[in-house]
Amino acid sequence: MNRSTLTTYIEQHRGRWLKALKSWLAIPSISPISAHLGDVQRAGAWLAEHMRAIGLENIRVIEPQGRPLIYADWLHAGPERPTALIYGHYDVVAATPLDAWTTPPFEPTVRRTERGEDLFARGASDDKGQVFAHLLSIEAMLACDGRLPVNVKLLIEGEEESGSPVISAFAQSHAAQLQADVCVVSDTSMAAPNRPTIDYGLRGIWCGELTVRGPSADLHSGSFGGAVHNPLQALCELVASLHDPQGRIAVPGFYDGVRELPEQERQALRDGPLNDDDIRAAAGVIELYGEPGLCAAERIGARPTLEVNGLVGGDTSGQFKAIIPASASAKLSARLVAHQDPARIPEFLCRHLEAVAPRTVTWSLSTLAALPSVLMPPDSRAMALASRSYEAVLGTRPSLSLCGGSIPVVSLFRNDLGLDVVLMGFGLPDDGIHGPDERISLDVFERAVLISGDFLARLGQELD
Amino acid sequence: MNRSTLTTYIEQHRGRWLKALKSWLAIPSISPISAHLGDVQRAGAWLAEHMRAIGLENIRVIEPQGRPLIYADWLHAGPERPTALIYGHYDVVAATPLDAWTTPPFEPTVRRTERGEDLFARGASDDKGQVFAHLLSIEAMLACDGRLPVNVKLLIEGEEESGSPVISAFAQSHAAQLQADVCVVSDTSMAAPNRPTIDYGLRGIWCGELTVRGPSADLHSGSFGGAVHNPLQALCELVASLHDPQGRIAVPGFYDGVRELPEQERQALRDGPLNDDDIRAAAGVIELYGEPGLCAAERIGARPTLEVNGLVGGDTSGQFKAIIPASASAKLSARLVAHQDPARIPEFLCRHLEAVAPRTVTWSLSTLAALPSVLMPPDSRAMALASRSYEAVLGTRPSLSLCGGSIPVVSLFRNDLGLDVVLMGFGLPDDGIHGPDERISLDVFERAVLISGDFLARLGQELD
Repeated sequence: MNRSTLTTYIEQHRGRWLKALKSWLAIPSISPISAHLGDVQRAGAWLAEHMRAIGLENIRVIEPQGRPLIYADWLHAGPERPTALIYGHYDVVAATPLDAWTTPPFEPTVRRTERGEDLFARGASDDKGQVFAHLLSIEAMLACDGRLPVNVKLLIEGEEESGSPVISAFAQSHAAQLQADVCVVSDTSMAAPNRPTIDYGLRGIWCGELTVRGPSADLHSGSFGGAVHNPLQALCELVASLHDPQGRIAVPGFYDGVRELPEQERQALRDGPLNDDDIRAAAGVIELYGEPGLCAAERIGARPTLEVNGLVGGDTSGQFKAIIPASASAKLSARLVAHQDPARIPEFLCRHLEAVAPRTVTWSLSTLAALPSVLMPPDSRAMALASRSYEAVLGTRPSLSLCGGSIPVVSLFRNDLGLDVVLMGFGLPDDGIHGPDERISLDVFERAVLISGDFLARLGQELD
Repeated sequence: MNRSTLTTYIEQHRGRWLKALKSWLAIPSISPISAHLGDVQRAGAWLAEHMRAIGLENIRVIEPQGRPLIYADWLHAGPERPTALIYGHYDVVAATPLDAWTTPPFEPTVRRTERGEDLFARGASDDKGQVFAHLLSIEAMLACDGRLPVNVKLLIEGEEESGSPVISAFAQSHAAQLQADVCVVSDTSMAAPNRPTIDYGLRGIWCGELTVRGPSADLHSGSFGGAVHNPLQALCELVASLHDPQGRIAVPGFYDGVRELPEQERQALRDGPLNDDDIRAAAGVIELYGEPGLCAAERIGARPTLEVNGLVGGDTSGQFKAIIPASASAKLSARLVAHQDPARIPEFLCRHLEAVAPRTVTWSLSTLAALPSVLMPPDSRAMALASRSYEAVLGTRPSLSLCGGSIPVVSLFRNDLGLDVVLMGFGLPDDGIHGPDERISLDVFERAVLISGDFLARLGQELD
């Protein structure tokens, strides 16, 4: 199928596919909140039915009582033809605070913005919209040609935002069934449609919780203030001790093993599509922050972080309660790069806390999740093909970049299944993923459908 | 009325007055939470009706649509006899977290503890129980003698925990009506029943909120982590900057004007009823904290503090959301001593924050309330009389101490109305005020009734 046929298909069926995408986005499939389990299952069932309707086969709903993993395939290209495994996820993170959204997160709405026409909804960019681009290219090819240029397997999970336990177990027990020549993971962003990028690395992550305990119960701050170490103050002091004033992580051992970038790779990051000012503007901050002497793209892609993602302690009412709280907790996470070992992060943190924590309070640190970073060879078959498809559709050869985020399954696909993975991201940096007013550019979405089609066609033509 | 008659009255009517006190404590008169306004009004109405029932007169419910201030008097002792003004409050702070209570905070329950029989309820010690001790001594005298030994005025407010705006306005416009020879404020604690104490000073307070803002919206910590200063981290760094590692406040100017204690007064605090280990045990901490070289009683009574009473930022869900929050806020309060000017505290804080805050975030500081400290001359008429009443009932002459808390009206009574105030506290340090499982010792309560009766009788006998 050539590109103009696909373009025509997208235009002619716009009303129908946009309605379908909206109805999928309208399901609040928030995997980290157990009360939304039924919504996750509904979104999975919607996907399975949609896959069946566009002509995919062997549809399986794995773990239907949990957060279902959806498998589908189309294997009639012939055994001599290549196979692509396409991954994405249909679960989303919570959309609170709701009042920060211009329109409700689960009432998908198209609005004209400075970017063109944007579709606003939780999951529009991360990741239902990206999955749907592949579904639409497959739909068009099956509808117009009655066939696909290659064999295709899809594996779309419902708990990427919750650590991906089901897909991890499934992939390890079905390694043969999931074998493919290339593996396309669409859950990242490119710098801009006219500055396409393909990520060749993902950061790993460690996350946990630090709790500080002091008095046996909340105390009146008048009766005891001045004689007792306030656990909330002590927690702030411990959190503050994690960085030096320049923004470098001050935990001894933390940087052990971190891959030092060759000067050529460092220069490529400096010359990359997003300079410091672009990143500053996308973040909406007055000034950037972080390790001195490195550009922001390097700090995000190739350096580890240690963040405090949430903190709560003491009086959080709308009023003022003059207490010294009995305890306070902070959620911490570290983004990790090659070649850090996630298992050692809590060890370094504990050693640091033991050294700096005062004897006036007690503390404990728990680990919630840990995942290593991934690096993919920039000259792989999948990466080379994808690069040509981006160039064919967008007119510009994509540059290679490092993604600051973490995708649990990529390590699984690449390190455990040995697949040739390419991160074919269709998002934009200002899509607002995980925040309010998440959106996808409809213009970029339509080009993503073309890139998906071009990639499958190009993979099929390798043999021709 | 002699003490044995009063003792007999308390014993004979125990079932009835305990039931009455419990029904008052059962009303959740939480003044800082506006949804409880109706409960505050119900508790005020209960008090007014109880005052009428025991024989008090001229009962006025001031600001009945707000958090009512209740006035009552009994002025038939004769114009040549002294007049006592008795102050207390019937509002309480919130009782959250409810699951930290052994029995619900508004289902008053008597349980046997290591202290004897304790009555558990929010407000049992702070301050309905203390007010009720005076009401019961007045009830007994009016019931048995048909008269009181002195003229009595009562002023019981419903918003002590919310800054006392109504009573402040009322007292200033009704200064003549409130004139009295002595003013009894019962809203503090003594060290122990066998180690009675009378506070001759109260700390002042400044409270406000510090907000730090960074990105224009919450960011994904993978996409931006390493390049953006996390406002929650920056807030922790600012909070940590408020103290030096030894526990001294590190804000320049903060200690300006603080009264240095004469060595005799300092020695009296060291020899006071509560030594460091008593305070450590009452707080339930493993080790005390604070300015080096000073005993805990001096740090609590005669030194200022700067506390973080509440902090919230980022993800506070039960799950883990890997965000860099757009902003984070901390509730701060300073307890102030003679001769600090509350109005200068935000000025010192702002100057400090300007000096230490990074340019990567913005911050703002608001003031919610400010109140100066109070010192009362230890040799005043009211203090001397009270001291003798404590000694008569408890068998031990009370020592003088400095209270770390703040009572908005005491500054008003003493500095604005020129009254001779005595802080006649009936609480105990381990009553758990403002925390879970607040309680009052029934044994101490009954002795408080005797002290109240003895004080009024002794004040009346001054002329005999």
